[in-house]
Amino acid sequence: MLPAQQGYDRAITVFSPDGRLYQVEYAIETVRRGTIAVGIKSKEGVIIAVEEKPRKLQITDIAQKIFQIDDHVGVAAAGYIPDARSQVDNARFFSQSNKMIYDEAVEVETIAKHLADQCQQFTQYAGVRPFGVALILGGVVNNNPQIYLTDPSGTYISYDAIAIGSGSDQVTDFLEKTYNKELSLDDASALASAAIYLSSEDKEGTSHIRMAQIKTKSGLFELVSDEQIAKYAKTAKEKYPHGTK
Amino acid sequence: MLPAQQGYDRAITVFSPDGRLYQVEYAIETVRRGTIAVGIKSKEGVIIAVEEKPRKLQITDIAQKIFQIDDHVGVAAAGYIPDARSQVDNARFFSQSNKMIYDEAVEVETIAKHLADQCQQFTQYAGVRPFGVALILGGVVNNNPQIYLTDPSGTYISYDAIAIGSGSDQVTDFLEKTYNKELSLDDASALASAAIYLSSEDKEGTSHIRMAQIKTKSGLFELVSDEQIAKYAKTAKEKYPHGTK
Amino acid sequence: MLPAQQGYDRAITVFSPDGRLYQVEYAIETVRRGTIAVGIKSKEGVIIAVEEKPRKLQITDIAQKIFQIDDHVGVAAAGYIPDARSQVDNARFFSQSNKMIYDEAVEVETIAKHLADQCQQFTQYAGVRPFGVALILGGVVNNNPQIYLTDPSGTYISYDAIAIGSGSDQVTDFLEKTYNKELSLDDASALASAAIYLSSEDKEGTSHIRMAQIKTKSGLFELVSDEQIAKYAKTAKEKYPHGTK
Amino acid sequence: MLPAQQGYDRAITVFSPDGRLYQVEYAIETVRRGTIAVGIKSKEGVIIAVEEKPRKLQITDIAQKIFQIDDHVGVAAAGYIPDARSQVDNARFFSQSNKMIYDEAVEVETIAKHLADQCQQFTQYAGVRPFGVALILGGVVNNNPQIYLTDPSGTYISYDAIAIGSGSDQVTDFLEKTYNKELSLDDASALASAAIYLSSEDKEGTSHIRMAQIKTKSGLFELVSDEQIAKYAKTAKEKYPHGTK
Amino acid sequence: MLPAQQGYDRAITVFSPDGRLYQVEYAIETVRRGTIAVGIKSKEGVIIAVEEKPRKLQITDIAQKIFQIDDHVGVAAAGYIPDARSQVDNARFFSQSNKMIYDEAVEVETIAKHLADQCQQFTQYAGVRPFGVALILGGVVNNNPQIYLTDPSGTYISYDAIAIGSGSDQVTDFLEKTYNKELSLDDASALASAAIYLSSEDKEGTSHIRMAQIKTKSGLFELVSDEQIAKYAKTAKEKYPHGTK
Amino acid sequence: MLPAQQGYDRAITVFSPDGRLYQVEYAIETVRRGTIAVGIKSKEGVIIAVEEKPRKLQITDIAQKIFQIDDHVGVAAAGYIPDARSQVDNARFFSQSNKMIYDEAVEVETIAKHLADQCQQFTQYAGVRPFGVALILGGVVNNNPQIYLTDPSGTYISYDAIAIGSGSDQVTDFLEKTYNKELSLDDASALASAAIYLSSEDKEGTSHIRMAQIKTKSGLFELVSDEQIAKYAKTAKEKYPHGTK
Amino acid sequence: MLPAQQGYDRAITVFSPDGRLYQVEYAIETVRRGTIAVGIKSKEGVIIAVEEKPRKLQITDIAQKIFQIDDHVGVAAAGYIPDARSQVDNARFFSQSNKMIYDEAVEVETIAKHLADQCQQFTQYAGVRPFGVALILGGVVNNNPQIYLTDPSGTYISYDAIAIGSGSDQVTDFLEKTYNKELSLDDASALASAAIYLSSEDKEGTSHIRMAQIKTKSGLFELVSDEQIAKYAKTAKEKYPHGTK
Repeated sequence: MLPAQQGYDRAITVFSPDGRLYQVEYAIETVRRGTIAVGIKSKEGVIIAVEEKPRKLQITDIAQKIFQIDDHVGVAAAGYIPDARSQVDNARFFSQSNKMIYDEAVEVETIAKHLADQCQQFTQYAGVRPFGVALILGGVVNNNPQIYLTDPSGTYISYDAIAIGSGSDQVTDFLEKTYNKELSLDDASALASAAIYLSSEDKEGTSHIRMAQIKTKSGLFELVSDEQIAKYAKTAKEKYPHGTK
Repeated sequence: MLPAQQGYDRAITVFSPDGRLYQVEYAIETVRRGTIAVGIKSKEGVIIAVEEKPRKLQITDIAQKIFQIDDHVGVAAAGYIPDARSQVDNARFFSQSNKMIYDEAVEVETIAKHLADQCQQFTQYAGVRPFGVALILGGVVNNNPQIYLTDPSGTYISYDAIAIGSGSDQVTDFLEKTYNKELSLDDASALASAAIYLSSEDKEGTSHIRMAQIKTKSGLFELVSDEQIAKYAKTAKEKYPHGTK
Repeated sequence: MLPAQQGYDRAITVFSPDGRLYQVEYAIETVRRGTIAVGIKSKEGVIIAVEEKPRKLQITDIAQKIFQIDDHVGVAAAGYIPDARSQVDNARFFSQSNKMIYDEAVEVETIAKHLADQCQQFTQYAGVRPFGVALILGGVVNNNPQIYLTDPSGTYISYDAIAIGSGSDQVTDFLEKTYNKELSLDDASALASAAIYLSSEDKEGTSHIRMAQIKTKSGLFELVSDEQIAKYAKTAKEKYPHGTK
Repeated sequence: MLPAQQGYDRAITVFSPDGRLYQVEYAIETVRRGTIAVGIKSKEGVIIAVEEKPRKLQITDIAQKIFQIDDHVGVAAAGYIPDARSQVDNARFFSQSNKMIYDEAVEVETIAKHLADQCQQFTQYAGVRPFGVALILGGVVNNNPQIYLTDPSGTYISYDAIAIGSGSDQVTDFLEKTYNKELSLDDASALASAAIYLSSEDKEGTSHIRMAQIKTKSGLFELVSDEQIAKYAKTAKEKYPHGTK
Repeated sequence: MLPAQQGYDRAITVFSPDGRLYQVEYAIETVRRGTIAVGIKSKEGVIIAVEEKPRKLQITDIAQKIFQIDDHVGVAAAGYIPDARSQVDNARFFSQSNKMIYDEAVEVETIAKHLADQCQQFTQYAGVRPFGVALILGGVVNNNPQIYLTDPSGTYISYDAIAIGSGSDQVTDFLEKTYNKELSLDDASALASAAIYLSSEDKEGTSHIRMAQIKTKSGLFELVSDEQIAKYAKTAKEKYPHGTK
Repeated sequence: MLPAQQGYDRAITVFSPDGRLYQVEYAIETVRRGTIAVGIKSKEGVIIAVEEKPRKLQITDIAQKIFQIDDHVGVAAAGYIPDARSQVDNARFFSQSNKMIYDEAVEVETIAKHLADQCQQFTQYAGVRPFGVALILGGVVNNNPQIYLTDPSGTYISYDAIAIGSGSDQVTDFLEKTYNKELSLDDASALASAAIYLSSEDKEGTSHIRMAQIKTKSGLFELVSDEQIAKYAKTAKEKYPHGTK
Repeated sequence: MLPAQQGYDRAITVFSPDGRLYQVEYAIETVRRGTIAVGIKSKEGVIIAVEEKPRKLQITDIAQKIFQIDDHVGVAAAGYIPDARSQVDNARFFSQSNKMIYDEAVEVETIAKHLADQCQQFTQYAGVRPFGVALILGGVVNNNPQIYLTDPSGTYISYDAIAIGSGSDQVTDFLEKTYNKELSLDDASALASAAIYLSSEDKEGTSHIRMAQIKTKSGLFELVSDEQIAKYAKTAKEKYPHGTK
């Protein structure tokens, strides 16, 4: 333990003899310790969903781990959430600037690259620590639904469906087995519910599930109501009995 | 003990191999070591309350752990109080600027996010330590009473009722069991008194209890008089005999 | 001893696993190692007093641990005195600026907060060590005598009577037992003498006692003459025979 | 292991007693851990190719390790890909600036030198870590196909054919045995496929191979279609049966 | 020895657990290791004197440890002499600026405070080490002879007679026993000679004694001639036979 | 090994107890690990030569370790070649600036001093590591052929003939035995070839030898063709049979 | 050895518990490891001399350790010579500036103080290491020959004759025994030769001796020719047979 202690707490992220950046890997470990977040693409739109575990008296009007970036883009986060907020603020400002300069909605990839570039810089320059959060960006531009993942290393990749956070390996396996490109948005939303049940300790209720959709038609970010989530959850349990247990 | 010693005293907050930010966790430990602070929401307004333990010859005219931010917003702090003062000054300036720019009272959430953003930055950039204090912001905007919690990690969350500081786990349990949304402001104030008795070593007097209310009607921050506190305390002992022992 | 050695000597003040700021606690230890300083309020004014231990050939015209800030405010210091001088210069400048801007004498609390804010910053930002001194500010504004204490943590608190430095716990106990709000300024001055005798090794002479008064009537800072101190000391021995031994 | 731990994690890259820059060597180790990338020159143009291992639901429209710099220049990267992106952005900006200043397409060598100079600076100045990536730049200027390699040390060298990343020693040996300057572009592309099979665990499919060509005639960067890659792969297996197993 | 090693060599002066600033104490140890310097006040003026141990071929025209600050002020130094020179340059510039601004000779105390303030800052801010020198400032302003001592901690104190450097404790004892305020300047100069003999290994010669006087009448700094020093030394041996052995 | 580890990897080059600058010595070790470079002066001009070991498919049009600075000056480098490039760029800029300011070709010594001054600064200031390269500057100014050596310590010295890099001690001995000032440029070039054979593992071929000449007559830097090198190598083997084995 | 290792390699020069500045002492050790340098004053002028040990093929036209500062001032250096060059450049610039401002030749002492002040600063501020060189400045101003020594501590002292570098203690003893103020410049030069023989391993030749004279009459710096040095060396062996063996 002692050598590790000496190895990780430095003023700048450096390479280890085997060519690894430990601070980046530890930051990714922070993501792995976060609650699950998923993003699933369908032709009818994009669904992002997270697990939230509010205290009993917490006001749950405000989602803690789902954020709107712009009319047409949202984010689901896993890991150190205050860092997510910092990146979300950055993305909102970037998205607005883009709109003002080019007079059109910014591409989801453009935002993802912008955030990932910042993540990369925070692994190379002294005076900062890497971001401890991974983000699933979902959005629709020109009727084109898209999902992007950014992580603390500065990587960004587009997916049809992806999960991050606690149990994401198992959930991603599940998504890879069950996902197909012909899913309706409702199917995708049910699948997202199943994914969260798979990771969560809570296998019954729906109060710990939060979702947002960006429909291809409207191209607008919308939080999914609790009632709707309940319906998706019900479908999930019927369609994916194993996945949700 | 030695590895820990080596791990925590660095010029910048960094990730540990298990993805934790120790400096942030230690700062939260500072909050836990502070005396109790509570915030409770009622339809009639918001109550914030703290325990203070003045020396015998201390002038108690000035509250040490309750601060007014603006006409309609106050703060109850737990942890390293000089840091609270620094954040309070920041919030006052921010609140005034907001009023000047938008010509309307600032939302409590807007202040909470502003302070939490600063907290987040102090966990990511070199040259500073994290704030060692958590704040309960209580306020009324447009007849809408609100309570927000900020902590050293940069998290901010809205609650119906919340406690921070020494014994806050036990107190929060107590609040979760006894709180309901139909409480009158007087009920809420009595409940806050009970919460402080639950945490405090002093189970009898009221000189160690300080409170402020922001009533929904007036929307104005007011310190609660010692006489009034005594009445709330009396009610607390009658209504929550177990909670106050 | 070795772990402690590793823990305290860092370029920035950081939290320990139990949520403490060791550099601040060590700075407060510096105050505790200083000679005693006391401040006592009476309706007729404020008395501040310190013990000084001059070398035999030292010129004692100039007080080393009592400083005038403004016409109506003085300071008694305990701890690392060069740091006190730095804060006193700061306070003088601040006080003059205030007078120029608002055209009225600055409140003692305003100065105390200003100095405490600086103390707080020196515990949070890299590149500086905390101040190693506590100050008792005494002053009279609008016929209102006031005493404030600032310490290295950035805390400031108002007192009727307070002691800092070597033996201050014992002296504060003594003050709490003997103080009452109806003391005349002469009574308060005698009580201050007794407080110093209680802490000092010198239980007889008066050359090691230095005092200043700000009378409510005049509102002006005045050093107390050696003759007058001798009278107070005589009274002290008569009124508090136990306290002065 | 402990001495090494102490040796590599420092705020600035420094010389070891045997005259080595460990941080640079560790960064080169990062390159060696990356998947294979190759560049091969033919009279008819330049081919760059990489292995990519997408997750099953990853959108593979966007190459992760091949980037276009300018109309006539592309890059294949091995190592820490977010660093590659940072250098690619730098190269794009540099290339555009050059075009604006000199009104002609920038030489590939000029870009290579520019990127290598940045790499060198990141090994000599404090506050940054070296880049963890090597780049194969391929381009055509004035009908002259060129390949350049840059690495974390700041070295840049021109090659007829070169491989970097996992198994690059074996692949370079293979290229040195099989390469000749009279290769057609199709031959070179088949050879690049063989090179990737040699390094990759996947000895059959073609979904893990990505290529781009800059033809001498057009002087334009073009991604190679999956169909075309399949043909090259087939040729590779026929012509280099040993190399692809 | 090892813990101490770890404790003292840091980029900033910090508090130890017992509230001490080791770097300041070590700097004061540097003063203690320097040769003796004394300052003695008489009604007729001020005498400052030092021991210097020149190499045989050293040109002794220029005093190494006595410096003139202004027409009416001089300095005797003990400790790390290059630091003394830095402070002397500072004092000369400060003194000239004062004269230009206020059109009158600067008070000795004003210079002493200025230098001590700088010393204090060098104990609180990172990026510098404390000064390793103590200074005895002697001067005459308005027929008022004055002696001030500054030291690495940032303390400044006025004395009738004081010694710093090697053996200064013993010498100060000696001065306290023999000094009286009615001394003539010649008496004071003889006493200074005796003080230097007491500390020095050389109990016979006078070539190691250097002196300067500022007479009350003239108010002008003057180096004392070797002949005159010889006379003072002779008197010293007659008047203080024990002190000079 | 452990103490050395602790000693060399620091943010600034510092003195060891025996008055050595280890970082500088380690940088010189980097030079010693580089391939051989030689410079030899003749009345007819200056020859600089290096060993290069290209990979089989490397394009050898561009010399890696010989650089042109100006029309009349070239450099042969040994050690960390990316650092050489950085100094060469500096020298080119410096040389052009000189020409513009003084309207005449810059002296070789002036460039050597300029580069050596930079080397010295990189051993004294924090935030950089020393240069890991030594340079042999050869040039002709006013019909005056000159050779200068710069090294990581910041030293620059003029030689008739000098070798740096791997085996340079043995080669310098050889040069000292065989060199005379009456050599023709062809003799000097043959001698340089012999010097490289002496150090190199390749005792036969000439593809690893690169040379440049600046002839006294023309005063122009010219790379030596492979054919010409082959002739020099042949002569070398005849004239210095022992030296080349 | 290990504690010392920990003690000396720090980002800033700091005091040890016994009040010493180790980095300064180590820098002085660097001077002691350098070859001998001497300076001797005579009524007829000043002689400075050094030992140089050129490699066989080194061009010895340019002195490595004797530098001209101005028409009337030269320097002989011992220690880390690149640092000497840095200080010499500084001195040349300072000397020229002085001449331009005051329109007269600068005093040798003024230059010595300027360089020593820089040395002092490099022992007190972070981000630099002390200079590793001592300088003997010799010059003639207004027919007044002068010799000054500066060293890494920031001390400067005037001497009739002084030696620094390897064996300087023994040489200084020798100078103290043999020097007298009535020496002619030729006598002084012979004595300087003897001093170098005393320190050097080469007790016969003169090629390792370099000298410069500034004659009182001309007040101009002149390098001494090899022939003249040979004559001085011959005289030295006759007059000081013991000193030169």
